[in-house]
Amino acid sequence: MRHNYLFTSESVTEGHPDKIADQISDGILDAIIAQDKLSRVACETILTTGIAFVAGEISTKAYVEIPDIIRDVIKDVGYTDASWGFDSNTCSVLTSIHQQSGDIAMGVDSGGAGDQGLMFGYATNETAELMPMPIVLAHRLTKRLAEVRKKKILKWVRPDGKSQVTVEYKDGKPFRVDTIVVSTQHSPDVTNKQIEKDLMEHVIRPVMPKGLYDPTSVKHHINPTGRFVVGGPMGDTGLTGRKIIVDTYGGHGSHGGGAFSGKDPSKVDRSASYMARYIAKNIVAAGLASKCEVQLAYAIGVADPVSVLVDTKDTENVAPENLDKLVRKHFPLTPRGIIDHLKLRRPIFRKTAAYGHFGRNEPEFTWEKTDKAKALRKDAGL
Amino acid sequence: MRHNYLFTSESVTEGHPDKIADQISDGILDAIIAQDKLSRVACETILTTGIAFVAGEISTKAYVEIPDIIRDVIKDVGYTDASWGFDSNTCSVLTSIHQQSGDIAMGVDSGGAGDQGLMFGYATNETAELMPMPIVLAHRLTKRLAEVRKKKILKWVRPDGKSQVTVEYKDGKPFRVDTIVVSTQHSPDVTNKQIEKDLMEHVIRPVMPKGLYDPTSVKHHINPTGRFVVGGPMGDTGLTGRKIIVDTYGGHGSHGGGAFSGKDPSKVDRSASYMARYIAKNIVAAGLASKCEVQLAYAIGVADPVSVLVDTKDTENVAPENLDKLVRKHFPLTPRGIIDHLKLRRPIFRKTAAYGHFGRNEPEFTWEKTDKAKALRKDAGL
Ligand SMILES: C[S@@+](CC[C@H](N)C(=O)[O-])C[C@H]1O[C@@H](n2cnc3c(N)ncnc32)[C@H](O)[C@@H]1O
Ligand SMILES: C[S@@+](CC[C@H](N)C(=O)[O-])C[C@H]1O[C@@H](n2cnc3c(N)ncnc32)[C@H](O)[C@@H]1O
Repeated sequence: MRHNYLFTSESVTEGHPDKIADQISDGILDAIIAQDKLSRVACETILTTGIAFVAGEISTKAYVEIPDIIRDVIKDVGYTDASWGFDSNTCSVLTSIHQQSGDIAMGVDSGGAGDQGLMFGYATNETAELMPMPIVLAHRLTKRLAEVRKKKILKWVRPDGKSQVTVEYKDGKPFRVDTIVVSTQHSPDVTNKQIEKDLMEHVIRPVMPKGLYDPTSVKHHINPTGRFVVGGPMGDTGLTGRKIIVDTYGGHGSHGGGAFSGKDPSKVDRSASYMARYIAKNIVAAGLASKCEVQLAYAIGVADPVSVLVDTKDTENVAPENLDKLVRKHFPLTPRGIIDHLKLRRPIFRKTAAYGHFGRNEPEFTWEKTDKAKALRKDAGL
Repeated sequence: MRHNYLFTSESVTEGHPDKIADQISDGILDAIIAQDKLSRVACETILTTGIAFVAGEISTKAYVEIPDIIRDVIKDVGYTDASWGFDSNTCSVLTSIHQQSGDIAMGVDSGGAGDQGLMFGYATNETAELMPMPIVLAHRLTKRLAEVRKKKILKWVRPDGKSQVTVEYKDGKPFRVDTIVVSTQHSPDVTNKQIEKDLMEHVIRPVMPKGLYDPTSVKHHINPTGRFVVGGPMGDTGLTGRKIIVDTYGGHGSHGGGAFSGKDPSKVDRSASYMARYIAKNIVAAGLASKCEVQLAYAIGVADPVSVLVDTKDTENVAPENLDKLVRKHFPLTPRGIIDHLKLRRPIFRKTAAYGHFGRNEPEFTWEKTDKAKALRKDAGL
């Protein structure tokens, strides 16, 4: 492991086309499981100039008006005017939905995993939310970009935007912010000078931590292309599941590849990733290690994971073999066990679809609770 | 780092719906850059029952008949019969393509990166191709599944399929195969007993390495749902860029989140990932380390990376600071430098869109060459 290095993570706003797609997929999922919590949902969205197309496999007793949900999400995100590149009222909405394959349903009905796959969860004590610093700072910038737009603090800001933060680590700890990249869609009438001044004053400075951010030494790239009037689905085609690193740990640790949005919790891509985070976070919160990564892997139709790996990157205070045993003892790892423990059969997913699935403190994010830390600590003899 | 553990990776066949989408996107890219190598292409595909929809941003002087390319890819993959769930001749083909945003083009024309983002490359000396063992074995299974189908060795095998391999590591080295999961779409008339027997005999045994695979102790999950007749886009909606871990290192090391298929090489998501692999592989081939991970990060419109990180996970034979310098000296890191060095302005991408972008030995895979190893070794004083 390097101890002195630069690490970069990125985030995008809720108006980024891939993120609009995620929010539509999760908006549809929420509406369906609000009516029928045992629904099977796999809902994918693609957005391009003037079109939102939703496809997937849905088996449910619910009836929802999908076009309305799509238009609502696009409106909430802020694309309500054709002159901004996309208009929630007049865009074309296409859907092509079929039932879940009976062959797959068979394996899931008996309590098995809804797919094969590998999932990771991560935690580190370098921030209060036990998340890596670069992704925390990158999300702060994009959240703030949406806030200055919605609160009309900066009237020229439009919905699409991105941030990227490079953090310098010293002795394995965040030491200073090295580089910040911010790009935001804007109205055609604002000058680049104004953009730079406003973003420094109202977006970057207010959210950067004093101890890590020295404005005179940080390299800033603000709207580096020089123009970003065309944005949203008109500038870039958006798809569900294409921001999986923004959704998780910003590139710190590994990723299994599975996307979250639009998937009901019988899909282990989602539920087992949430459980892996919950395990990793509780291990770090318990003081058993300062960094922790958990890998789970499943076979389709089979309930128990085929492998469980706890890697504390040489930061543990207890023997790694003990950690494996503690995990199997304290955490349910079958799809049903996970769903019950984390209360995942609820319409809580649309919120997760922007600004990260982890490191959040809203009450719905049950996988962020550290309610197992005490028991783990005791059982480890610490 | 754990030294004794289980690690799981997965692969999918070329008939998996996400992979068909990748191959369509890269098939269109190839056809376009074959005619106009400076084309800008961002091409996304979604596939569901009876529909292939392609959207994206393309600026080119080429003229290509996109519906023909789409049908060709689906035919090559093997979906040529409605009774198999998808028919290349009669499926509906929709396209919605617009030009690259002029605002983005501005930043790219001057040699800047086509987007912000972070990219990783990885190499390890645990296999001859300097790739992690689990993903190598997972790809062998899916490639063999396609082979027994296309060579009609097993007449009941249909195009969609997946594999997953759990490898037990001892002292940080692959020690034995622990678990194998294989699911393949099949004709309705074959029994589960036959499927199991045939896959053991013609798929699993022939490709598993003798030294790691003991058939009596390995756990096998063969078509664990019990039935997989419905497959391809009818069983699961497919999207471009949704198999990014299968495309890379199977979860070993980090991922920046960017997808590859459908993107011309001015997009650093693709070209800088290829360069990062080339760097990591040459460092390992040179004997400077036994494992190496390289992170590059870019700002949109800016040519030089905002950060470069070489992490050899404590396996290096030279000081890490020296490695950083060696990398900057021996490898071009601007988009143009990368494109020239790796000869990326050629129609070579459709091949990359199934069975992994890395660890391949076909001549087009220039990023797999170890032609810098000698110079690196010399310069490091080894
Ligand atoms: C640069 S686009 C990806 C490339 C695009 N598909 C193409 O073909 O050019 C990725 C994201 O960058 C942001 N973006 C779009 N236009 C931009 C601009 N003019 N300057 C900076 N960022 C921009 C948007 O958030 C967009 O979703
Ligand atoms: C299980 S599906 C994903 C879940 C699906 N979207 C749903 O809603 O049920 C993922 C992949 O598994 C494979 N698959 C499809 N049907 C299967 C079956 N009956 N048994 C095993 N694997 C299957 C295909 O490769 C498919 O693309």
